[in-house]
Amino acid sequence: MRKVDPELHAAKREAILDAAADLFGRNGYDATRTADICRAAGMSTGNMFHYFPTKRAVLLAVAERDGQRTAAALAGIAEATDIRAALLDTLEAVCHIAADRTAAGLQLEISAEAQRDPELAELFRTGDRGLRAAFETALAAGIGSGAFDSALDPARTATWLAALVDGVFARVAADPEFDPVRETPTLHHLAAALLPRPGTVGI
Amino acid sequence: MRKVDPELHAAKREAILDAAADLFGRNGYDATRTADICRAAGMSTGNMFHYFPTKRAVLLAVAERDGQRTAAALAGIAEATDIRAALLDTLEAVCHIAADRTAAGLQLEISAEAQRDPELAELFRTGDRGLRAAFETALAAGIGSGAFDSALDPARTATWLAALVDGVFARVAADPEFDPVRETPTLHHLAAALLPRPGTVGI
Repeated sequence: MRKVDPELHAAKREAILDAAADLFGRNGYDATRTADICRAAGMSTGNMFHYFPTKRAVLLAVAERDGQRTAAALAGIAEATDIRAALLDTLEAVCHIAADRTAAGLQLEISAEAQRDPELAELFRTGDRGLRAAFETALAAGIGSGAFDSALDPARTATWLAALVDGVFARVAADPEFDPVRETPTLHHLAAALLPRPGTVGI
Repeated sequence: MRKVDPELHAAKREAILDAAADLFGRNGYDATRTADICRAAGMSTGNMFHYFPTKRAVLLAVAERDGQRTAAALAGIAEATDIRAALLDTLEAVCHIAADRTAAGLQLEISAEAQRDPELAELFRTGDRGLRAAFETALAAGIGSGAFDSALDPARTATWLAALVDGVFARVAADPEFDPVRETPTLHHLAAALLPRPGTVGI
């Protein structure tokens, strides 16, 4: 019996997810065949089934990894010395991600497929809760350090920062001429309206 | 040969679109059968094919009507005496529409299906251009009447008002606890940051 090397197994699994995320984002979930994913990941079609039983399972794993990566990327904001600057930097990073049509396309595919798949919808919502929780923790820390007025409501403000992020991705989908990187200053301007300095009034 | 009464034909067509919009929004496009639409519209299944050849054609017509209704609803803003108030009223109306889970669900279904249907994607984008054009016309009129600072860029501001609308719908989809009507003041606060009064600075 062949022994499975756990590190090699994990590396192959990641390679499948990378290939699938790229193809789903570029060509859509429906148009991507399992054989396409295997070719892009450099393995035979039969081999993929040691890692994922179906294309659906690959999509679920892509969505789950996406949520975990977002949470990990945002976890650092609360530790920053200048939390306001760290939040604005994060929003700028969002604009760069949204400018990558493949990454933006993947987000759209996940939200579209979540409309018809309760399991994916739950993963999508879990990822969203993680995003808002990370913003909320950072906002609470920023009140503590005097970056924001103490009247700021961390949960509501986190929700509206998420709405601004959603808005940027939606504009990329709706309008081929929308350039999110060029629009970063406006996103910062709107975020500033949500982030009152001590002694000023926000939402 | 039976003569077709144009008014009756138009009324039946509208009844099909009303029934379909409700079912697509409530249960999703995939889960809705042509027979369900016909039953809800009070006609036999065979009869529907005098109006629409396929369920897909019904969805396209729903999306097209949706875009036309949005454009018509927004066309009045530019004529208002107080354009700022009319814009804020429109955003409040958006919050009420988003609070109707069936209407919000329909928007999501249209954008999800547009991911895999170029014809629907084009209708979706045409509707979006109409929305932005209506905002832009109103903003230009508001500069003329002294409601907004003359440095306001109508096209860019229209794009960001659309992003805020997108953000509200996206929050409804992502977070079952998000109540858009309760959040209207925050939407107004963010819109105000995009709508500088004469002599003040916006985006």
